[in-house]
Amino acid sequence: MNPIDRLIQLLARLPGLGPRSARRVALFLIKKRESLLLPLGKALHDVAENIQACPVCSNLDTVAPCAICRDQKRDPSVLCVLEEVADLWALERTACFKGRYHVLGGRLSALDGIGPEDLSIGALVERVEREPINEVILATNLTVDGETTSHYIAERLATSGIKVTRLAHGVPVGGELDYLDDGTLTAALRARRSVTS
Amino acid sequence: MNPIDRLIQLLARLPGLGPRSARRVALFLIKKRESLLLPLGKALHDVAENIQACPVCSNLDTVAPCAICRDQKRDPSVLCVLEEVADLWALERTACFKGRYHVLGGRLSALDGIGPEDLSIGALVERVEREPINEVILATNLTVDGETTSHYIAERLATSGIKVTRLAHGVPVGGELDYLDDGTLTAALRARRSVTS
Repeated sequence: MNPIDRLIQLLARLPGLGPRSARRVALFLIKKRESLLLPLGKALHDVAENIQACPVCSNLDTVAPCAICRDQKRDPSVLCVLEEVADLWALERTACFKGRYHVLGGRLSALDGIGPEDLSIGALVERVEREPINEVILATNLTVDGETTSHYIAERLATSGIKVTRLAHGVPVGGELDYLDDGTLTAALRARRSVTS
Repeated sequence: MNPIDRLIQLLARLPGLGPRSARRVALFLIKKRESLLLPLGKALHDVAENIQACPVCSNLDTVAPCAICRDQKRDPSVLCVLEEVADLWALERTACFKGRYHVLGGRLSALDGIGPEDLSIGALVERVEREPINEVILATNLTVDGETTSHYIAERLATSGIKVTRLAHGVPVGGELDYLDDGTLTAALRARRSVTS
């Protein structure tokens, strides 16, 4: 196969790209051979060579265990449980969480046939027994599958006597009530807080 | 810089991708290390090593001159002038043109400061003098800049005595009149054809 066709075929498999945009990207890369095509090839090679999943929390990093698990300044008593590494990155960008993470690698899904043994839930239970953890924050997505996963983990950890919490549900910052869905509004109303002391 | 951050930074520069979708693509690639990340790295390397612009028509190919310029079955008397290689691919997909091509590498644009010397217009005039060409089909885009480019080339070729044609303007196949812009409808009306013999 022609190298260009092969490149287009591979690019078209990336999320968000189709055959037409893959052609556009391929031509763009060829036009910017020195400034983009060659560096991108090198970056892919570097990632393939150096990036690995952390054996403790499943975060991606050049070192194992990852920089977050190694960081002695982070609080080892709070563990945040997430579905994917992307969620971990999102939380790290806020720079407001100083505990450690545990990435499940997905969510429970009857539809996709993903059970507890497909996720790192067993490893999570072991970590909770082994490490000096006081609180587990369940930060799975607020979808049906994410909620199911959280409920399942909460049940598994119920006997451990550890505090298990969940991210707050409510109105997003900057959100206008008129545009919110009923579910979010109901959750925000139920979890209302007192503003008078 | 961390290899993942570097990869995301480069991916975010591709057309159609932003920082958020670049992160998504990077994680997707890392998840599919064997089936996508490594093959894509190899494909980029192959394209960088093997693909070059044809010295005759500026098409991209592994050989120089390109396969189309080499093909003895193609009609050397008809030359189709295009803005970009993407346009050449589009025309090749229709499989209805059997002549040869000349890719300009862009269009004249006063706004972007692109003049005739930035495009391969001089090379086109030389080709028309040197090769046994009877007809030049101007197939630039139907934008203001594309039209300007076509007019300019038509003027440059006026003294050569060669037949210069332009792609037909009109209603696209499957197009509904009600949804067409006025310009296209006007062009279609002006270029109306007789259906009675």
